[in-house]
Amino acid sequence: MAVLDLNADLGESFGQWVLGDDEAMLGLVTSANVACGFHAGDPSTLRWATAHAARGGVAVGAQVSYPDLRGFGRRFVDVEPSALTDDVLYQLGALEAMCRVAGTRVRYVKPHGALYNATRTHTGQARAVVEAVRSYDPSLPVLGLPGSELLRAAESAGLRAVPEFFVDRGYTPEGALVPRREPGALLDDAAEATERLVRMVTDGVVRAVDGTDVAVRAESACVHGDSPGAVAMATAVRDGLARAGVELAAFTT
Amino acid sequence: MAVLDLNADLGESFGQWVLGDDEAMLGLVTSANVACGFHAGDPSTLRWATAHAARGGVAVGAQVSYPDLRGFGRRFVDVEPSALTDDVLYQLGALEAMCRVAGTRVRYVKPHGALYNATRTHTGQARAVVEAVRSYDPSLPVLGLPGSELLRAAESAGLRAVPEFFVDRGYTPEGALVPRREPGALLDDAAEATERLVRMVTDGVVRAVDGTDVAVRAESACVHGDSPGAVAMATAVRDGLARAGVELAAFTT
Amino acid sequence: MAVLDLNADLGESFGQWVLGDDEAMLGLVTSANVACGFHAGDPSTLRWATAHAARGGVAVGAQVSYPDLRGFGRRFVDVEPSALTDDVLYQLGALEAMCRVAGTRVRYVKPHGALYNATRTHTGQARAVVEAVRSYDPSLPVLGLPGSELLRAAESAGLRAVPEFFVDRGYTPEGALVPRREPGALLDDAAEATERLVRMVTDGVVRAVDGTDVAVRAESACVHGDSPGAVAMATAVRDGLARAGVELAAFTT
Amino acid sequence: MAVLDLNADLGESFGQWVLGDDEAMLGLVTSANVACGFHAGDPSTLRWATAHAARGGVAVGAQVSYPDLRGFGRRFVDVEPSALTDDVLYQLGALEAMCRVAGTRVRYVKPHGALYNATRTHTGQARAVVEAVRSYDPSLPVLGLPGSELLRAAESAGLRAVPEFFVDRGYTPEGALVPRREPGALLDDAAEATERLVRMVTDGVVRAVDGTDVAVRAESACVHGDSPGAVAMATAVRDGLARAGVELAAFTT
Repeated sequence: MAVLDLNADLGESFGQWVLGDDEAMLGLVTSANVACGFHAGDPSTLRWATAHAARGGVAVGAQVSYPDLRGFGRRFVDVEPSALTDDVLYQLGALEAMCRVAGTRVRYVKPHGALYNATRTHTGQARAVVEAVRSYDPSLPVLGLPGSELLRAAESAGLRAVPEFFVDRGYTPEGALVPRREPGALLDDAAEATERLVRMVTDGVVRAVDGTDVAVRAESACVHGDSPGAVAMATAVRDGLARAGVELAAFTT
Repeated sequence: MAVLDLNADLGESFGQWVLGDDEAMLGLVTSANVACGFHAGDPSTLRWATAHAARGGVAVGAQVSYPDLRGFGRRFVDVEPSALTDDVLYQLGALEAMCRVAGTRVRYVKPHGALYNATRTHTGQARAVVEAVRSYDPSLPVLGLPGSELLRAAESAGLRAVPEFFVDRGYTPEGALVPRREPGALLDDAAEATERLVRMVTDGVVRAVDGTDVAVRAESACVHGDSPGAVAMATAVRDGLARAGVELAAFTT
Repeated sequence: MAVLDLNADLGESFGQWVLGDDEAMLGLVTSANVACGFHAGDPSTLRWATAHAARGGVAVGAQVSYPDLRGFGRRFVDVEPSALTDDVLYQLGALEAMCRVAGTRVRYVKPHGALYNATRTHTGQARAVVEAVRSYDPSLPVLGLPGSELLRAAESAGLRAVPEFFVDRGYTPEGALVPRREPGALLDDAAEATERLVRMVTDGVVRAVDGTDVAVRAESACVHGDSPGAVAMATAVRDGLARAGVELAAFTT
Repeated sequence: MAVLDLNADLGESFGQWVLGDDEAMLGLVTSANVACGFHAGDPSTLRWATAHAARGGVAVGAQVSYPDLRGFGRRFVDVEPSALTDDVLYQLGALEAMCRVAGTRVRYVKPHGALYNATRTHTGQARAVVEAVRSYDPSLPVLGLPGSELLRAAESAGLRAVPEFFVDRGYTPEGALVPRREPGALLDDAAEATERLVRMVTDGVVRAVDGTDVAVRAESACVHGDSPGAVAMATAVRDGLARAGVELAAFTT
């Protein structure tokens, strides 16, 4: 029987400002990438999110970021690798404390926003993130983009590298994401996205933007946590996977 | 044989800005109250300080604070107790990650600056700090001012409450600190301070500001980490204790 | 003919996080208390709000705050008066630059949240805010609570002190606000609030929480900018004032 | 008679942390690039620096930066040009308020650290900085590196573009700075640096790192404000210029 993990970015409120419907999303996903305070997520938000995830049996991952509240972590920052390693450790530990008092622990690490994008190709920063994880707990998997420097560095360091699939992003015939500004970059039809996802899980292929099929392998599928239709999309995906007989389970054990 | 712990605030540099001579101080104290990033201490500073403390056999404590870089944590902030608990947990975890990669762990908690002062009398905030420690690890001691609400709350919660003595502060006949703006608030003579400290350790009394003796019990003595004469004072104290046959050892085990 | 100013807190989004419907509110109020970046309001939010206010003929005031993004400026911070003066100047200038490129200027100052509350009674902080305004531009009015230390200090310093009325808050028989946790603290009925406001403008009295009438004088009425019903309440108030023949105009000229 | 401006980065302390000897440096330079709070410089530091500069007749420039206290503004941040324009305006205004209460005004703008480096070649960010200055006050000069995109954009926008010379940096035969990691990047001999500077002012040439002469034109010379030998170097330079009959005067009027 096919098994899939569903992950989303959560815990991204800050103080007075609310982002997304974390409560609803935590009822739908199997893994929660919880913000760690650098791009979003004040300590109370983190604590609520981890406690709620723990109660619901949702695995908590550390969604680590550049320090950039104003830019929501979406702007590349040219941090020296050694400082980046320290920043990731700091965030990992902060989230771990929240997990600990909630009776769980951090189960994986996934970079956020511009750090996610940078570590596709920036070897120094990719290794810096991996070095933080390895030195902290080499049993922690790293969740990221297939083919990225990040996953390559994770494997080289002996970590489990977990490739993810984007439920609502178009794919090129080479299996890469269609850049955001090109046609076909985003799928907003939930039924179509779900159908494509089921095929990826069961057959290992997705229909690319040009109509051809391309092989894609992923252990987790990322749904958005904070867009207006996030809850509806995640609900549709979850239902579609259930109908197709795909079991939903966290990729961590 | 009498035993005493010597603690100081360390890890209080931030980015480009250096404060104090941490390297020298780590060769003199037995416990390091390491900043956690809220009033001082960027992640790289924390990492350096914990690694260096671990190598030197110095116990690391979490010097938790209000979020106030600009004011160095010296300004009271009327944080709701539940938010304060979360803030303390966040800081504890962040420092713990640094300790973990250094092969050690956080051994105790001591509030910094205005939070230290507030928790002398502010029951809500005192309990909030204690609640963070208790929920995180009830085996962690809390270091603080004798007679404070903080130590009272720690004891009520079943935590070990460790009273500290201030090496360079004057004491009232009641055993309290002489307020900073009154005469006799500060001792700047290292020999006099050392002599007074030795007597406190061996006889359990100190000479108060009015010349009378007052009973003071403390398991740890705090020396300043960042003042101009900090290293000289700590060196004098350490030498004086050795001459008096007082063994220096961390109060944690 | 009676004239009234309607003010609201605006420009309180930050980066990715949106708060309130500034566009709608700027079509309803005559004065906009624009956040200055310390409790809310990143530079781009400030620029948008001031530009939009300028185009709509809405007067811009500086909504100055303690530095506290996490707590949205709602937590008292025991800032030294001289540092508070500098913080207020910094915020005033930052907002002024946005006004300048929008072809307008800062027209008044109103403290936000905990600073507003503190300066009701905290003479040192009240004078510190006033000193910033006076040294920056003694022609700028200060908007605040009738009877507050803030308005008293403003008058003493030769500034124009403008008392405001809260459209949706209950009043005591003494003319003070009913504390938030007591019954009658909040009026959620727009019709009732509007009727009460019209009477305050035309007759100079409001019905207090105990049913008696109390004299209240105010040149400006504050409506909330970010609560769920903010736009509906402000619309009702505006319509009610028009029906009653009250002219809406900024208190500044 | 030859005339030269001497500029240095000042106002770079933050809260408890002191950087450089601003008081001494303000007695030596003719223009002070004062930090604006984004990479350094809390409001009280800015106020002190501008007040002291005003009293000493030193021109104040806005040393604008990426928002990066932790990295001291030395890390490239991929800020969108429109957001960067808003950030620069915010900083300009904040510093202007301090100048205003000191009886002076901001006289010029100079980007700091990584923003200075980026705007050598990054057209989008260079234009964004210039757009802020132009929309704020088109009479403000921009101080920067000869040949940079920044100065080119300033000229295109009709602003005065002021090229500066680095007193302690080596130059290539093409008139560019020797990269920091190459031999000859830094001159630490004050006499040699002064002699070279005098020749630049009087003859318009400097001896390059390979021994050849290269034409260099600059209206201002930058000395470091915060390095250990900063005061000694600036004193030597000032004395050397006086002996050579070069008049020191701000490039702004």
